[in-house]
Amino acid sequence: MYSFENDYSEGACREVLEELIRTNDLQVSGYGLDRFCLEAAEKIRKLIGNDRADVHFITGGTPCNVLAISLLKAHEAVISVGSGHINVHETGAVEATGHKIVTVKGKDGKILPEEIRQVVKDHGDEHMVKPKMVFLANATEYGTVYTYEELKKITRTCHELGLYLYLDGARLSNALCVKKAGLDLKKIASLADIFYIGATKNGALLGEAMVIINDELKPDFRYLIKQKCSMLAKGRSIGASFNALLTDDVYLKNASHANRMAQKLRKAFEGHGIRMYIDSPSNQIFPILDNKLFRKLKKDYVFLKWSDYDAKHTVARFVCSWATDESKIDELNRKLDKEMK
Amino acid sequence: MYSFENDYSEGACREVLEELIRTNDLQVSGYGLDRFCLEAAEKIRKLIGNDRADVHFITGGTPCNVLAISLLKAHEAVISVGSGHINVHETGAVEATGHKIVTVKGKDGKILPEEIRQVVKDHGDEHMVKPKMVFLANATEYGTVYTYEELKKITRTCHELGLYLYLDGARLSNALCVKKAGLDLKKIASLADIFYIGATKNGALLGEAMVIINDELKPDFRYLIKQKCSMLAKGRSIGASFNALLTDDVYLKNASHANRMAQKLRKAFEGHGIRMYIDSPSNQIFPILDNKLFRKLKKDYVFLKWSDYDAKHTVARFVCSWATDESKIDELNRKLDKEMK
Amino acid sequence: MYSFENDYSEGACREVLEELIRTNDLQVSGYGLDRFCLEAAEKIRKLIGNDRADVHFITGGTPCNVLAISLLKAHEAVISVGSGHINVHETGAVEATGHKIVTVKGKDGKILPEEIRQVVKDHGDEHMVKPKMVFLANATEYGTVYTYEELKKITRTCHELGLYLYLDGARLSNALCVKKAGLDLKKIASLADIFYIGATKNGALLGEAMVIINDELKPDFRYLIKQKCSMLAKGRSIGASFNALLTDDVYLKNASHANRMAQKLRKAFEGHGIRMYIDSPSNQIFPILDNKLFRKLKKDYVFLKWSDYDAKHTVARFVCSWATDESKIDELNRKLDKEMK
Amino acid sequence: MYSFENDYSEGACREVLEELIRTNDLQVSGYGLDRFCLEAAEKIRKLIGNDRADVHFITGGTPCNVLAISLLKAHEAVISVGSGHINVHETGAVEATGHKIVTVKGKDGKILPEEIRQVVKDHGDEHMVKPKMVFLANATEYGTVYTYEELKKITRTCHELGLYLYLDGARLSNALCVKKAGLDLKKIASLADIFYIGATKNGALLGEAMVIINDELKPDFRYLIKQKCSMLAKGRSIGASFNALLTDDVYLKNASHANRMAQKLRKAFEGHGIRMYIDSPSNQIFPILDNKLFRKLKKDYVFLKWSDYDAKHTVARFVCSWATDESKIDELNRKLDKEMK
Repeated sequence: MYSFENDYSEGACREVLEELIRTNDLQVSGYGLDRFCLEAAEKIRKLIGNDRADVHFITGGTPCNVLAISLLKAHEAVISVGSGHINVHETGAVEATGHKIVTVKGKDGKILPEEIRQVVKDHGDEHMVKPKMVFLANATEYGTVYTYEELKKITRTCHELGLYLYLDGARLSNALCVKKAGLDLKKIASLADIFYIGATKNGALLGEAMVIINDELKPDFRYLIKQKCSMLAKGRSIGASFNALLTDDVYLKNASHANRMAQKLRKAFEGHGIRMYIDSPSNQIFPILDNKLFRKLKKDYVFLKWSDYDAKHTVARFVCSWATDESKIDELNRKLDKEMK
Repeated sequence: MYSFENDYSEGACREVLEELIRTNDLQVSGYGLDRFCLEAAEKIRKLIGNDRADVHFITGGTPCNVLAISLLKAHEAVISVGSGHINVHETGAVEATGHKIVTVKGKDGKILPEEIRQVVKDHGDEHMVKPKMVFLANATEYGTVYTYEELKKITRTCHELGLYLYLDGARLSNALCVKKAGLDLKKIASLADIFYIGATKNGALLGEAMVIINDELKPDFRYLIKQKCSMLAKGRSIGASFNALLTDDVYLKNASHANRMAQKLRKAFEGHGIRMYIDSPSNQIFPILDNKLFRKLKKDYVFLKWSDYDAKHTVARFVCSWATDESKIDELNRKLDKEMK
Repeated sequence: MYSFENDYSEGACREVLEELIRTNDLQVSGYGLDRFCLEAAEKIRKLIGNDRADVHFITGGTPCNVLAISLLKAHEAVISVGSGHINVHETGAVEATGHKIVTVKGKDGKILPEEIRQVVKDHGDEHMVKPKMVFLANATEYGTVYTYEELKKITRTCHELGLYLYLDGARLSNALCVKKAGLDLKKIASLADIFYIGATKNGALLGEAMVIINDELKPDFRYLIKQKCSMLAKGRSIGASFNALLTDDVYLKNASHANRMAQKLRKAFEGHGIRMYIDSPSNQIFPILDNKLFRKLKKDYVFLKWSDYDAKHTVARFVCSWATDESKIDELNRKLDKEMK
Repeated sequence: MYSFENDYSEGACREVLEELIRTNDLQVSGYGLDRFCLEAAEKIRKLIGNDRADVHFITGGTPCNVLAISLLKAHEAVISVGSGHINVHETGAVEATGHKIVTVKGKDGKILPEEIRQVVKDHGDEHMVKPKMVFLANATEYGTVYTYEELKKITRTCHELGLYLYLDGARLSNALCVKKAGLDLKKIASLADIFYIGATKNGALLGEAMVIINDELKPDFRYLIKQKCSMLAKGRSIGASFNALLTDDVYLKNASHANRMAQKLRKAFEGHGIRMYIDSPSNQIFPILDNKLFRKLKKDYVFLKWSDYDAKHTVARFVCSWATDESKIDELNRKLDKEMK
């Protein structure tokens, strides 16, 4: 069995593991105030070209989302596509902190400026929540990627309407490695009020780096981290991991490998006449499999059933990562040869 | 500089680190449902002699506390000593989930059965919260340890009054290693409705094992873990860490070393006429230092100021761990010789 | 100016006002435990034919909704049509208590059994909230009314799926007075696990009667009422109001008048070729007005703009109540004669 | 039986009832935006000498407390004496909105400036909540009254430390009528950032007037009112009630009568050698009754047992109000004559 179930099926990538081993015996302070975290934060400030940004290291992605949205006041709400991770797959973690998620339909997993505008228009008085933040993930939950141009339009809309833009970067590095999106960390930092750079899905054992650009959102953030169960006693582990990932562009190399593997897998499917449910250029693909083929592949591979497509077809999800073994994709391709002939 | 600041100043102990390395490349499922977690849970069920217990691996101690207390209904409250970690050092994480902490004074950091009884007596109607759970930490925040006899009385009181007993085991292994307390994991599991075995402070990079004994508290617990930001995508890291700690009693060896070091340090202080603020038999000690000595030691050692004692003295906190280097204690002893002669 | 803005534009109906005056000087206990409340609760138990039901008097409709949903556990969610009052017009009050609202499309403002079934099917694991309650309002926010047959199907679906059915009865009396719906209080009580009988919109100054049928939902409810800001010191006011409303069927007479007035107004519009946006048989109607007519009517009447219909038309909302003056409807009819000729 | 149980045993005072009747049939808008509310708000702005204050009409006292404290950010806490209503008698309503109450001991039910200072000193970092608001009630829960001088010191302390001062005025009028306290509404408004003027306990059927002085606390307050279940559809009832109370100083006349009755009752007790548990100059008194006398008086009067005093004595609470019948006090005095001779 080989697993394409997700991008966190293995432990840490070599560079991260080595850095954890190298720094293991050094004594440092707890809670993310250690020298490894400080160093990693400094690296991030350089990469984004903003030496005033606040950087915090957080245990995971749901914690990051909860923290960003906890910055809102009691009656303020966040806007998201219905397929947004915060709306579907976080067991109501956002609502558990008291905030409503106002959902829109989106297109290909992406929120549209006109949808944001409509939500604000529809929320006119105190009998409704007050939309105050836009949530989006890049890459999205469907593996699609917002381009620089698309993000600029969303940012402009947010500025016009007095909304904060929060970018969930669980797979941000994967988005950065999609060339046609035209993104880099500097651009991201110039567009979002607050965002995170994910490491859990890009080669760390755990951890994400929350980056706060907007001064209004900076004060007392560490209080929230503690309160929302998202502070690690040995924050050093996350700091050290980021130090490894941010050295020699390991984070981009990891993500780039993941994307390349997924696109190679996609070609393997498409080469056998199998269409994709959605055109995703990053490390997740969604082939529409004949149910018989779906069952056959399940014998040798771990992957997710995404949804029913029609009576005879199923949408599957295959995810590649920094750890994906290219030979396994060649092998799967040969299996398709055999099955589809 | 050598640090006695806390018991999480280093990375992982050797056994944990090796297990993380050994299992690093194996593909497993996410979110704590992997084989390492299953194996570790099974080990815990054997150790506590209860094969029906539910075991969950959680990111940290505050998350564990929040989760246990989130099992209460909206109007139910938890009783704790005022010095309890949940009341002082968790940035209102418990209240942030909607629950009130009703505090009592306690003695030496420990809650007394008669205090529990009084709280229940004082809360008679629906204009007040309904006390439903008792929180205690063993070892306590003061390094003191509840004995088996003390815990049995508390358990009996809880049963009488219809309260759940939740035991915060951030330093449970340290308590188990205090012989005169007469405890072992089987006894703990026979007394508490829910408790956790801490690993963050006992040699793991992160992670605690929540153990649920009372059937009423078992359903849907994983929903809470996800919602309260306490589930790790790579839960495997915690599972593997516990596998290492629970093999050949590493968890007891680690805690035992920590206790032994702290008590040796205590003797060093006491041998120089320095009294302890509290009589703590585990891995935290609280010497009452002359302010001048306090400042001198600060030059060579990292440790906490706990509180002012009087105009001329300060209560300090020294913590030892699995990683404490015994030669550093000898060295500190020699320094005391020099300073106090 | 005459107002059709809503059904709470006047104070109390005559019978309620007289009862408030009659009982004003009598001394009673606070918080809804007085004899007026006890008497009114007893009346309700008789009307619903269930002498084991718990009855509580609550300040308003949003409070009732918040209370019912607060009975859920932290990770449990409520299912509602998107147009549900809890989802749109309560400023996130439900989410503020930590619970997610899972929305479905509905039809004519009513939730469909198959939608409930689909939600449960789609929520399969602990990464998503657990649907546990169905919310519906009868009459709905669109003035439509669930029939007995429709409600029975929904109840059956809830029982199958282990969901509680909560019925928001802000305008329950109006629904009861729609003959073809085939409802009465006994039937409502046999179908819902918990529901309320609204009085604010049916002639009281304030107050609703929450009725709990399902034993699981009964314990400690008064704790929630207090905690959620929904308990009145002078609960007597609500008890006395219900005593008046439940005597000689005043609550049905009030609602019946409201419905009759609204339907007469509807005929006035339809008699002038004006269509309704939705076919609502109770006390709210939604005529699609030509924008010019809309503006003209605004000069003499207060009513709500519900939404744009198309470039030239607007959906308006007219609400009638126990207090609606029939001569004003005749007058409006004459105005339409003049405008539309 | 005559009741001294509390100051909300009767309905409305004559002036309020008449105003409710007078305005009953007039059509107005809902939710506290009607002309009666606007008028009453204007009256309050005049009385406090601050034409920029925001005034909102709220359903009750617990709602007011919850609303004021909901203005805090997620990690911010409120400081209160342990005997504070929010800490004891609101079923955790404040914690239910996510905020911790940090308690201090106080003296005679009043918080001391040095206690506030100590709390702030003790809360130094992000592992603890951040104290941001001081709660106090005037009159207090013990019937004691903060003087102008005492309040000025507290205000100064709050300003120094960057804390908001919130004053719970459930019985503010009673405090204003205690001459030696030297207070009036203008002074209150110059000292507190936010406070409310209570009417539930001063002759209205329900309702309190929240007054916001500090500009930082003004934005979006109506969103909170709606979200926290504290907005009345027929807000007119509260507006009209305040119009009556604020005309010809009815609110002061009511409170003054209540105080005078309580002090007369106190003299009756003291004239019979019965001491007070606390020296309270407003409308609540706490005689220390011999248990036998306690039981005897219980046969003819309704009053509260406050607490045990010693084996033979009980602290009782007697409350007088605008409605207290003076002849009943004379009668009680005669009973004491008989019992104590």
